[in-house]
Amino acid sequence: MNILIVHAHPEPQSFCTAMMNRMKIRFEQQGHTVTVSDLYAKRFNPVASADDFVERSNPDYLVYALEQRHAQKTNSLPADIAEELKLLEQCDLLILNFPLYWFSLPAILKGWIDRVFLSGVVYGGRNFYDRGLMKGKQAWVTFTLGGREHMFGENAIHGDLNTLLRPVLRGSLGYAGFDVLEPFAAYHVPYITQEARVAILDQLDNAIDTLQSRAKVPYPSLDNFDTQMNPLVK
Amino acid sequence: MNILIVHAHPEPQSFCTAMMNRMKIRFEQQGHTVTVSDLYAKRFNPVASADDFVERSNPDYLVYALEQRHAQKTNSLPADIAEELKLLEQCDLLILNFPLYWFSLPAILKGWIDRVFLSGVVYGGRNFYDRGLMKGKQAWVTFTLGGREHMFGENAIHGDLNTLLRPVLRGSLGYAGFDVLEPFAAYHVPYITQEARVAILDQLDNAIDTLQSRAKVPYPSLDNFDTQMNPLVK
Repeated sequence: MNILIVHAHPEPQSFCTAMMNRMKIRFEQQGHTVTVSDLYAKRFNPVASADDFVERSNPDYLVYALEQRHAQKTNSLPADIAEELKLLEQCDLLILNFPLYWFSLPAILKGWIDRVFLSGVVYGGRNFYDRGLMKGKQAWVTFTLGGREHMFGENAIHGDLNTLLRPVLRGSLGYAGFDVLEPFAAYHVPYITQEARVAILDQLDNAIDTLQSRAKVPYPSLDNFDTQMNPLVK
Repeated sequence: MNILIVHAHPEPQSFCTAMMNRMKIRFEQQGHTVTVSDLYAKRFNPVASADDFVERSNPDYLVYALEQRHAQKTNSLPADIAEELKLLEQCDLLILNFPLYWFSLPAILKGWIDRVFLSGVVYGGRNFYDRGLMKGKQAWVTFTLGGREHMFGENAIHGDLNTLLRPVLRGSLGYAGFDVLEPFAAYHVPYITQEARVAILDQLDNAIDTLQSRAKVPYPSLDNFDTQMNPLVK
């Protein structure tokens, strides 16, 4: 497999970065090719704006998705988006590796999705969810967080973690058609012992070794909806 | 009331911008003071990074939240964060106005939260949810989206909209202690008639006029959890 790890932590010595390095080593040991896109190291620009388009199809009014399509057709995507998009298209498995900020992605990674998940290439028209254009690829979300495991779940203080992650798991990766693997969460990271950190990295190795039997996050199939996206079976 | 509208649309002629302008006029007619923080106009930097701290408490290892606290204490916050934080502290009602990107905030607005929701000022220690430090303030989320209303809900293709917005409504605004008002969604905006747009702006006026009786988005009370955040009643 070609594996793309999109990594977004501001501290190169962080445990989150250690997770990225560990994944790279383990996957390479298994014969896979791993590319890391380190967004902080690249000083990636996460802001989707008019600046992304040198030559607009409509110079008077910006519709970002339409200009994405135009730029793609006219081969005039900005170099940074073109580079990330190429990595995305080449990969079989996309991994987003990050620290959870406000129960979601750090802005630099959210903007990677905003700018790189191109209309017409990643999704578009009726090509979303199980007809998304990334179909056949897998996606995996691996992250660190401050909270403890018992703070997440049905009756726990923060609620169900996959529900909190829904905009990413289902609304972005699922929408684009990826097979979305059950996330890997490293809990309580800022507060734990070195021993506990080592144990998490071992769990990560184990998750990698068993990745192809890992549970998938469910998302809708367009088969169950009509052309207006009304449910076919009530 | 002092009202802060944080606005994040890349096209100044957009309907989303029209919503911002309409809110400003209506609230001002009612005698309120409205400040608009237009993130695209300001070219706001959404990336939480080491660059935010000129003089670090720990120069060797970045823990963003700890450096936020240190910078706040030593009065060395970057000018842009200090400015936004002052607006936030002065407001009675915070409005986030934006186009929904990937079922969540555009990166420029996500980064406004990442950088401006300061540890020790907005939340911290056990000061979160109903003990968050923004307690006594209200927050309202107003946004445009491409989807139609029937695509959201329990059995609809995209699921419940407030669940998708949970990281913002509950995980950010609720976590910080705001009273979170039921969001205002402008559906299907890129595809609707001028007439339909006028109707939405009228609904927005009406929502403003009845804002103080608007439903609130529920979130946990720490009263129901012990010091380890285990639920007190099972």
